[in-house]
Amino acid sequence: MYVNMCDALKNIRVVLCEPRHAGNIGAAARAMKTMGLDALYLVRPADFPSHEATRRASRATDVLAAARLCDSLHEALSGTALAVACSARTRELAVPAIDARSAALRLAGAAAAQPVALVFGNETHGMTTAEISLCQLIATIPADPRYASLNLAAAVQVFAYELRLAIHGAAPTGTPRTLAGHDALEGFYAHLESALLESGYLNPEQPKKLMQRLRRLYARAGLEQEEVNILRGVVRTLRQPKNIK
Amino acid sequence: MYVNMCDALKNIRVVLCEPRHAGNIGAAARAMKTMGLDALYLVRPADFPSHEATRRASRATDVLAAARLCDSLHEALSGTALAVACSARTRELAVPAIDARSAALRLAGAAAAQPVALVFGNETHGMTTAEISLCQLIATIPADPRYASLNLAAAVQVFAYELRLAIHGAAPTGTPRTLAGHDALEGFYAHLESALLESGYLNPEQPKKLMQRLRRLYARAGLEQEEVNILRGVVRTLRQPKNIK
Repeated sequence: MYVNMCDALKNIRVVLCEPRHAGNIGAAARAMKTMGLDALYLVRPADFPSHEATRRASRATDVLAAARLCDSLHEALSGTALAVACSARTRELAVPAIDARSAALRLAGAAAAQPVALVFGNETHGMTTAEISLCQLIATIPADPRYASLNLAAAVQVFAYELRLAIHGAAPTGTPRTLAGHDALEGFYAHLESALLESGYLNPEQPKKLMQRLRRLYARAGLEQEEVNILRGVVRTLRQPKNIK
Repeated sequence: MYVNMCDALKNIRVVLCEPRHAGNIGAAARAMKTMGLDALYLVRPADFPSHEATRRASRATDVLAAARLCDSLHEALSGTALAVACSARTRELAVPAIDARSAALRLAGAAAAQPVALVFGNETHGMTTAEISLCQLIATIPADPRYASLNLAAAVQVFAYELRLAIHGAAPTGTPRTLAGHDALEGFYAHLESALLESGYLNPEQPKKLMQRLRRLYARAGLEQEEVNILRGVVRTLRQPKNIK
């Protein structure tokens, strides 16, 4: 199969959630451009545009100028088929964690056909649980557990580097699967949640916990659009009274 | 061969030749520490120690405090068995060029027994020919040829990351998952199939085709026992009439 490398790189969004320091935004833009990435999405940046961002971007000011400003991560992920959350933390997670290299291969494979996103959290607190649950995978850069705190732009550089290697070294095998988009997945989860609330399976006080487990399970599978349709059909039909033919 | 990982990391020097910006020295120290490297050598830095270096080092100020100040690259390389020059430029070179990943493997192998060095040039002009000729290899980070100018600390981060992976190998991340057994899975599929037949979603003449798709989907996810229990709960509950509390 022929994969256009440039197109795959163009399909990869780098999303920074509520970045605090303008310098990091500029340095992230530079890191992206060195690896051929140019789609920067900024969710509620504290300070942008700014002189410091421009200074640290060096000759990647075109990436900054084209950056998309978003009100929410949901908005930044609209239209993507795969979103990977970058996180250093290990904790109770709604989605499975893999290393940066494996994540780059997954993203590169999907980006050959559809938009994907690599999502970074705020410098101080990282990604929130709500932000992570909008992603299908968590990726971690292997680091010294005694001090695993990479600078935000440094983490972008490592991932961008792995993505470039994954795409240029990618020898795709088999037919690429067309994954369901973010909006279709969220539509399915909303449908499932309302059916489970109505039927009494979810505790209305705490519906999120079980939904997190279900999201994690389906995220691992990597659902195609037709599978989402099938699952929605299953949920709809099971709610109907006993079938009479 | 048994390699003490800590010793190998301790045997790797990061040498910055005439760094111009104090911020880059601090950011390089941070990048090193995240990957377990701590031997920083500074050849005639323009501005060190400095407040800016300390600020950008974040919690890697111990690496800065222990940095060795050298009058020449020759001095910084004293006692090393292998020195690798990091350079983005292609030009008439006295030494062979390899990529960052291959260089990391070479350095990791040698560092198991002897001190080695990874050498970075000045931000503006890179490494001089005289500096390069003191090294045995040149290593390049694969980058977009249209803009291959990584920030100095970003380049240190990529090499430090590759060195850690080269020394630790691909260490698995996360806790291994315990998958549900064959009988539990088949029990779930039988339950799902009978519920879907009863509700009319499956064609009783050909129930297998849709079931195959659902099996394939769940097989990709790799279900745990607790997830099988949750899914069976979902199917059971959805079949119940409207919940009355």
